[in-house]
Amino acid sequence: MSDERHARAALSRLTEPGDPRVAAAVARAGAPVLLQELLAEQGRDTLDLDVEPRLGRLDPERELADAARSGIRFVVPGDEEWPTGLDDLAHAPTVHEMGGPPLGLWVRGPLRLDEIAESVAVVGSRSATTYGEGVAREIAAGLARAAMTVVSGAAFGIDQAAHRGALAADGPTVAVLACGVDRVYPAAHRDLLEHIATVGAVMSELPLGCAPLRMRFLARNRIIAALTRGTVVVEAALRSGALNTATWADGLSRPVMGVPGPVSSAPSQGVHHRIRTGAASLVTSPADVLELVSGLGEHLTEVPREPARARDRLSGRHRQVLEAVPLRHPAGLRAIAATAGISLLATQSALTYLADRGLVAESAAGWRLERSADAEVPEA
Amino acid sequence: MSDERHARAALSRLTEPGDPRVAAAVARAGAPVLLQELLAEQGRDTLDLDVEPRLGRLDPERELADAARSGIRFVVPGDEEWPTGLDDLAHAPTVHEMGGPPLGLWVRGPLRLDEIAESVAVVGSRSATTYGEGVAREIAAGLARAAMTVVSGAAFGIDQAAHRGALAADGPTVAVLACGVDRVYPAAHRDLLEHIATVGAVMSELPLGCAPLRMRFLARNRIIAALTRGTVVVEAALRSGALNTATWADGLSRPVMGVPGPVSSAPSQGVHHRIRTGAASLVTSPADVLELVSGLGEHLTEVPREPARARDRLSGRHRQVLEAVPLRHPAGLRAIAATAGISLLATQSALTYLADRGLVAESAAGWRLERSADAEVPEA
Repeated sequence: MSDERHARAALSRLTEPGDPRVAAAVARAGAPVLLQELLAEQGRDTLDLDVEPRLGRLDPERELADAARSGIRFVVPGDEEWPTGLDDLAHAPTVHEMGGPPLGLWVRGPLRLDEIAESVAVVGSRSATTYGEGVAREIAAGLARAAMTVVSGAAFGIDQAAHRGALAADGPTVAVLACGVDRVYPAAHRDLLEHIATVGAVMSELPLGCAPLRMRFLARNRIIAALTRGTVVVEAALRSGALNTATWADGLSRPVMGVPGPVSSAPSQGVHHRIRTGAASLVTSPADVLELVSGLGEHLTEVPREPARARDRLSGRHRQVLEAVPLRHPAGLRAIAATAGISLLATQSALTYLADRGLVAESAAGWRLERSADAEVPEA
Repeated sequence: MSDERHARAALSRLTEPGDPRVAAAVARAGAPVLLQELLAEQGRDTLDLDVEPRLGRLDPERELADAARSGIRFVVPGDEEWPTGLDDLAHAPTVHEMGGPPLGLWVRGPLRLDEIAESVAVVGSRSATTYGEGVAREIAAGLARAAMTVVSGAAFGIDQAAHRGALAADGPTVAVLACGVDRVYPAAHRDLLEHIATVGAVMSELPLGCAPLRMRFLARNRIIAALTRGTVVVEAALRSGALNTATWADGLSRPVMGVPGPVSSAPSQGVHHRIRTGAASLVTSPADVLELVSGLGEHLTEVPREPARARDRLSGRHRQVLEAVPLRHPAGLRAIAATAGISLLATQSALTYLADRGLVAESAAGWRLERSADAEVPEA
């Protein structure tokens, strides 16, 4: 296992994350063999992996020791803690020519990855609106209260709101970075990342010191998608990286969920597009999310209903008479019967029934509605 | 035809709209025969229709003459102007025990109903938000510009916004009322209804003088749904009557479309619920609506895209090197090669290629990104 761990640490230094050729070679020959091949020039030619410029820095033993001293562990497949959901990446379609499970995860924080019973990704635009951040916070808090771990990318906007929502609800949260876990990106989130590393986990497939680069964000997104039972996109413009995470989730057959917003809001357009084309399900609350990511019947969404009105409990004829009692001014029996299209006798009997239930009242001027009938004209 | 028209006018006075028993009897025996049956006491018993209280007022000849003097025509099936879409109601499922085509339509306004080539219902909550009214106006205006007639119910909120949007775009619009077309409901919409009656059409299946009653709104909604190629619900709380129109449209196999909004907004909850359960398609623009109600390919929605960026057109290796050029400070060839994981020679060649295209530039301090590369770290 030590050989394996060292080989994976070395490979994660020599190669870029999300390179499907590396993943395939590791699956075929194992990490130690691939490493040996790459250390021999001939093997490098065969694999077409250009690792020379990085060979100089290679010292996995020291790297693992340095990391351990900083409280950072390197979790690899086979470890008890390994999140097996990541293995699904071996069979998922590539996105932007990327794919494959990570070689390992550098993890900072007390949250053991095998203790994440259930988790949901909550991601979205860096250029989020106040509305979007509010919804992200509320959904994350609701998921946290339902014992779901909230996974996100620690970016500005939706990501940070999701982490903060989970933390506010005393729930576990995981930040997956596109740089080494010893780096702080974005710099303004130093306190947030420290907090997450204190109560949850900050992780990355990139070795310590690695900088956040565009391709690494795209590779990182597959980890977020594979680590979780589903991905919620709160706000995402049409080319947002959050949609890339959604694409990964979709390829992994994990539910993709989108939160709607005002149609005039650019950060909602990408989400609306995915919902419209059927690539995402519309969700508006933690309950909606739980229903989609949970086993059947585990978390049933209650359809919210307004309280039933007295008139809703009436039978056809009584209701017909109630409808015929005018909205404002009292009316006589004959007028009500004519409007209802019911005989005088039947109308009189119905009015008595309704009066007994406090829905109508008789005065010298005729019959009028009581407030309890809630007899407003319905919405059109 | 005169017999038929008179009989239908009389029946529309004697019965309530949306009574499926009346529709069935007319379909079976014809309107004149049904009228004769109802005028004979025995027939009334058989049909279980309680028309006695209304018999006194019955004078269809005078009613039709009075209406004509007021510029109101009574359009019935068989008339050139009859909107045949309404006939679909004969086979649609009932809703709240209502159903069936109307006996006829009392119409005020110059718009001939057979000249409505295509139409869309735009409906929603009376308690609409500023947001909802704005979206309703914009969608209606866009539909009007695409020569679609906008049909709605002239109510407060979304309905009036839809009518006004169509009128602002000089498009035809139709108001379907739940009272006689000589009445003004709501009273505050007197000018709006006058305007619609001047350039479009105000119509109702209810004879002149009839009051707006709750059940009549529910019956009216089936006319709105059947008259149009699809129904757009802009805002609707969970028990809104606008959802009733959507239910009619669904039963008639017409597309039901919903406009999303903030999840915290009560008037969007009914719409979100229908989208979430698959009972409505999410639409955000007139183009989305046109795509769903039009024949295949007639109105193709352009997927809105941000302009492609220079980096998107690069091949793998060139892109990899571009990504490795740091975001802020210039870097040397060796550092870039190490980050990209590519040999010095290949990196140099790629940098030259990128520089030729204005994406990177070399200075004494090293290579840096040019603005044209739009090389910001991607979202999320």
